[in-house]
Amino acid sequence: MLPAIEWRNGTVVMVDQRRLPTVEEYFHAHSYEDVATAIETMVIRGAPAIGVAAAMGVALGVSSLDEKLSGDQLRAEYEKIHSRLQRTRPTAVNLFWALARMRTVFEKYLGNPDLRRRLVEEALSIEREDIDMCRRIGQYGRELIQKGACILTHCNAGGLATAGYGTALGVIRAAFEADSSVTVFADETRPFLQGARLTAWELMKDHIPVTLITDNMAGFMMNRGAINYVIVGADRIAANGDTANKIGTYSVAVLARENGIPFYVAAPVSTFDLSLVSGEQIPIEERSPDEVTNIQGVRIAPQNVVVRNPAFDVTPARFVTAFITDRGILKAPYTETLRLMRDAGSGD
Amino acid sequence: MLPAIEWRNGTVVMVDQRRLPTVEEYFHAHSYEDVATAIETMVIRGAPAIGVAAAMGVALGVSSLDEKLSGDQLRAEYEKIHSRLQRTRPTAVNLFWALARMRTVFEKYLGNPDLRRRLVEEALSIEREDIDMCRRIGQYGRELIQKGACILTHCNAGGLATAGYGTALGVIRAAFEADSSVTVFADETRPFLQGARLTAWELMKDHIPVTLITDNMAGFMMNRGAINYVIVGADRIAANGDTANKIGTYSVAVLARENGIPFYVAAPVSTFDLSLVSGEQIPIEERSPDEVTNIQGVRIAPQNVVVRNPAFDVTPARFVTAFITDRGILKAPYTETLRLMRDAGSGD
Repeated sequence: MLPAIEWRNGTVVMVDQRRLPTVEEYFHAHSYEDVATAIETMVIRGAPAIGVAAAMGVALGVSSLDEKLSGDQLRAEYEKIHSRLQRTRPTAVNLFWALARMRTVFEKYLGNPDLRRRLVEEALSIEREDIDMCRRIGQYGRELIQKGACILTHCNAGGLATAGYGTALGVIRAAFEADSSVTVFADETRPFLQGARLTAWELMKDHIPVTLITDNMAGFMMNRGAINYVIVGADRIAANGDTANKIGTYSVAVLARENGIPFYVAAPVSTFDLSLVSGEQIPIEERSPDEVTNIQGVRIAPQNVVVRNPAFDVTPARFVTAFITDRGILKAPYTETLRLMRDAGSGD
Repeated sequence: MLPAIEWRNGTVVMVDQRRLPTVEEYFHAHSYEDVATAIETMVIRGAPAIGVAAAMGVALGVSSLDEKLSGDQLRAEYEKIHSRLQRTRPTAVNLFWALARMRTVFEKYLGNPDLRRRLVEEALSIEREDIDMCRRIGQYGRELIQKGACILTHCNAGGLATAGYGTALGVIRAAFEADSSVTVFADETRPFLQGARLTAWELMKDHIPVTLITDNMAGFMMNRGAINYVIVGADRIAANGDTANKIGTYSVAVLARENGIPFYVAAPVSTFDLSLVSGEQIPIEERSPDEVTNIQGVRIAPQNVVVRNPAFDVTPARFVTAFITDRGILKAPYTETLRLMRDAGSGD
């Protein structure tokens, strides 16, 4: 499968996720502004992929600056680039995490002729590490999945949402590699239809059996015994384990609990934001009403109807059976296990 | 508002609910076969409205028969009409209830020159009674709603789903008439989008404030305290109170329980099927995958993707706070209260 994002000699190339699966079209970002627009308009989406894109955006932005700028001028330009990218989307913490990593490199190499090269290398490291993290998530996660499992996933936490392989879909891929009787239900995930357009497409490309349902069918499928596991990704996880993820995740979690089905969140360390005590502090992005009232350009609601369009919700930690991270499986009490994870990994 | 269905001198006229709200187009049924097609393809939908349509279909079918047919020939033709209409949709019991009423009249007046007129009158009675039942449901239901309530409804149990006024929307209309601070959230209700296309449209026509959300947002809105009540319609209610209704109703009921929000089902007596012990016996219609993979003609999923498309689900009785019927409010234990309702109303 093609990667969601690629650094190609000073251009960031992204498959346009607004148009998949009916059209496979590539978006070429030649400036940090192009990258910012791509993130805002969801050419690229998925918390880890947004992080990679933002890092590449910084590398692109600084690379294009005049080599003769003074240190102060460079810094001023850097702040512009950083703040433009930072304002693209508020919920996924990987964006801020990646920007923080880029800033550290910028500070270290400011005034050094290697600055531009170092920034590009850092962005490529973030990309490479993300794929490694997904692989490790897959390895840890597949141990949790029994033979013949039918797994529900919501939204797309796949290769398209990361630098490759995926978080929730990474676990599914690893489980399927180990046991080809694993099957998947994909929620379509309104309004942006990541499940119908991206997850179904990714899994079909990998020949993993997938059944597409609308979001409101998941509960009934659980109730009728058709689903054994739920695995989703995450956009930001607070220190107590409260998890922001695509709108509808909370509902799926409540329905899983009601039906005695384990609910797993698969996410790399970059998705944990231990500076937040609980999910109440996670900002929830509200997107344009047009995403609800129009589907692929077709109007489906009355003119002037009032709409709410929160792009994410928060699932309280008590609904999460475990977190599947690149450092292993974390169980409750999360305030404790997440702190231990952070302390163990303080090297980064 | 225009009625969903009208008997007009030997033609059944229905607003085409597949095309609302962007196009207001009328479907003219000149034969019982046309009516059957209209029910199957969802030109008209909603349990009570389907019942009215089927009754008018019988009246239309028998009216068009040659007056010179013998009793046996008439009966044979009647069976054809009856069985064609009966096969249109399996879940909503109002269809079978209405057909049973028409058969009683047919048996009574077979051989009588008044047969055709009596059948038309019976269909019109079913229509008229349905509006009265909705009004009574509204009157009973509004007593349950506190000032300033924000009510979530799923699918469309409105004027378009009945002969007029609506069941769930009947309660909402009556509550709003009594207190103009009442507001509504409408789930869009994939795949057919009854909420986005029909409920939002109906409420806006009546100037009742409505906010449209996708199905997967309802849980989060409840969790954030934005919703005080859930009111839905029903397609069939078993003797123990288990309720078949539009797919997604079960999820909404579980989420309401989780968030301490009352969950009411508004339905006329014609929706209760006390011959069924529990919801497990209610047949659940599975409709075409195209409804999931295409929205208003636009493809939104990969070619050849496997799809499930159950049109209804079953909400266990324990999630139902009360039934709002045209004979009053029914509370648990439902096996008892539903039996009492039946015995009290044995006149029909």
